[in-house]
Amino acid sequence: MNNKQYIGRQSISFTNGPYIHAYASIVGKKEGEGPLGKYFTKIVEDDFFGQNTWEEAESALQGETVKLLLNRSGVSPSDIRYAFAGDLLGQLMATSFGLAEYNIPLFGIYGACSTMGEALSLASMTIAGGYADRVLALASSHFASAEKTFRFPLGYGSQRKFCATWTVTGCGAILLDSSSGSARVTGITTGRITDYGLKEKDNMGACMAPAAADTIYNHLSDFGRAPDYYDKIITGDLGYVGQTILIDILKTKGYDISNVHMDCGIEIFDINTQDTNAGGSGCGCSASTLCSYILNQIEKRAWKRILFVPTGALLSPVSANEGQTVPGIAHGVVIEAV
Amino acid sequence: MNNKQYIGRQSISFTNGPYIHAYASIVGKKEGEGPLGKYFTKIVEDDFFGQNTWEEAESALQGETVKLLLNRSGVSPSDIRYAFAGDLLGQLMATSFGLAEYNIPLFGIYGACSTMGEALSLASMTIAGGYADRVLALASSHFASAEKTFRFPLGYGSQRKFCATWTVTGCGAILLDSSSGSARVTGITTGRITDYGLKEKDNMGACMAPAAADTIYNHLSDFGRAPDYYDKIITGDLGYVGQTILIDILKTKGYDISNVHMDCGIEIFDINTQDTNAGGSGCGCSASTLCSYILNQIEKRAWKRILFVPTGALLSPVSANEGQTVPGIAHGVVIEAV
Repeated sequence: MNNKQYIGRQSISFTNGPYIHAYASIVGKKEGEGPLGKYFTKIVEDDFFGQNTWEEAESALQGETVKLLLNRSGVSPSDIRYAFAGDLLGQLMATSFGLAEYNIPLFGIYGACSTMGEALSLASMTIAGGYADRVLALASSHFASAEKTFRFPLGYGSQRKFCATWTVTGCGAILLDSSSGSARVTGITTGRITDYGLKEKDNMGACMAPAAADTIYNHLSDFGRAPDYYDKIITGDLGYVGQTILIDILKTKGYDISNVHMDCGIEIFDINTQDTNAGGSGCGCSASTLCSYILNQIEKRAWKRILFVPTGALLSPVSANEGQTVPGIAHGVVIEAV
Repeated sequence: MNNKQYIGRQSISFTNGPYIHAYASIVGKKEGEGPLGKYFTKIVEDDFFGQNTWEEAESALQGETVKLLLNRSGVSPSDIRYAFAGDLLGQLMATSFGLAEYNIPLFGIYGACSTMGEALSLASMTIAGGYADRVLALASSHFASAEKTFRFPLGYGSQRKFCATWTVTGCGAILLDSSSGSARVTGITTGRITDYGLKEKDNMGACMAPAAADTIYNHLSDFGRAPDYYDKIITGDLGYVGQTILIDILKTKGYDISNVHMDCGIEIFDINTQDTNAGGSGCGCSASTLCSYILNQIEKRAWKRILFVPTGALLSPVSANEGQTVPGIAHGVVIEAV
């Protein structure tokens, strides 16, 4: 059965890639007020999602997003063979409590803000490998649970650096299917831990840009493609600072992506009116932007193919306090209109 | 290419399962003094592994174990297409800093103490699906980094309940290969989040036993096998309390596994002399026992086939402090002598 599907150093080209059968996203009030507001499946005004703690709120956000996805697709949880899911909290707390009710065999994953790329990659490999007909891929983040984990309690009212990003309250979920849907995953490029030695945890765009550059560079060279092969090359949450660095690094490696690059963190908030400094972040940023604006553009064939490359800062509150660097990782997924 | 390989509700039977080409384990001094001491590849006396913090120590433990594995197998990092790896620390800190130097495309995973089962499952799917010829599967834990995260700083000298387990300082790493080795992975059963509502974080064996029972029950019924089909059914770190509960639950469901059950947490320490109460735990417990005693028994054909079922308590320090339950998950992997 080992008909080899891999190409180059770190990519897979699917001979029979899975379909994106349905998708759904839920975001918070601030994200709903941003430029992409009309594309989200649901906007929830109550940041607590009816719960008592921020962690329970993020679990409820995940659970609700899956419920929306099931309603949209008409599929029941027992028809879904596996879930690949994760979040930013220690020990994947939001996932452990958010998905329990669905009883779907679970592979918990952690790729920081690249998690939706990792989930889509593994879910696609699972279906294309003949291991399942339907697989769920999901990632979430919540502004308040992330601020509490990685920065300062909100009550402190700490000032934020201009290079800092704003964690998105959002969840995106995709149901991949072996036989029908409006788009297909046709390839992936899996990232490596990339560490340029930066230690500034408030400047995650700069910390993650080298990882995005590494994955995009290897993707283009593994597949022998030029940047303009894609309608868009879409990073997750580099923000304005990280975008500049990414484009600069890739130029030195011979690729100019400036005409096709887009960053979910830049798109999801209005920098002029929403006070979000360098842009949005969190694994819910790229996941909710994918499961709204991006897949909508593909569905209506405004874009025929994109490279989705969410980026993660492999940062823990403990590692940062112990003076460690902030390595990055980025996972690339090719999505094409059907 | 969708030649379906899945069977039953949550299992895969590999038509061409990957080989265990090489394995290695490193443990700390206390584990080295236990009953399995002679089987580990290396025992390190210095719990800091030459580093300055417990987290750096666990990263060094991972990095060293991979180095041993590479030496044993004669393979270079660039020959390994993917790594599936994880640990117990928030945001997979030990993995992010422990594996960076090898530059292997990484899928970070989190299944609490079931992580080695999750890593082996995904690595096997990856090779059997034709996506790679060589994949690394790895998990680690460290007594001091885990105590600091989940319990009390060691300096407090807190007393431990009799039902509590002792986190193993250990790492196990396996190199899976598409064509040669002394054992094969022939099937997997992926676990679901199982929550009986227990909140006693010091009694993780009781919290995880229902998940182990669910996975073992579904495994046996998916494959249509009786418990004595296996020479051993091996859980990860249920300890003495969890073992009793597991055997009882499965008896009520019609399976008596008492003659073939073994638990890594019970085997790795001597309850009479090592003061470890209910047994060993941590994802390094099952990973290091697998990559020493267990694979050695299979290699010399003392056991022809086993079901390896590490169990995880989906516990975070925050969720425990917020009064949440402790759900469990368990991932089953069938390993057969060649």
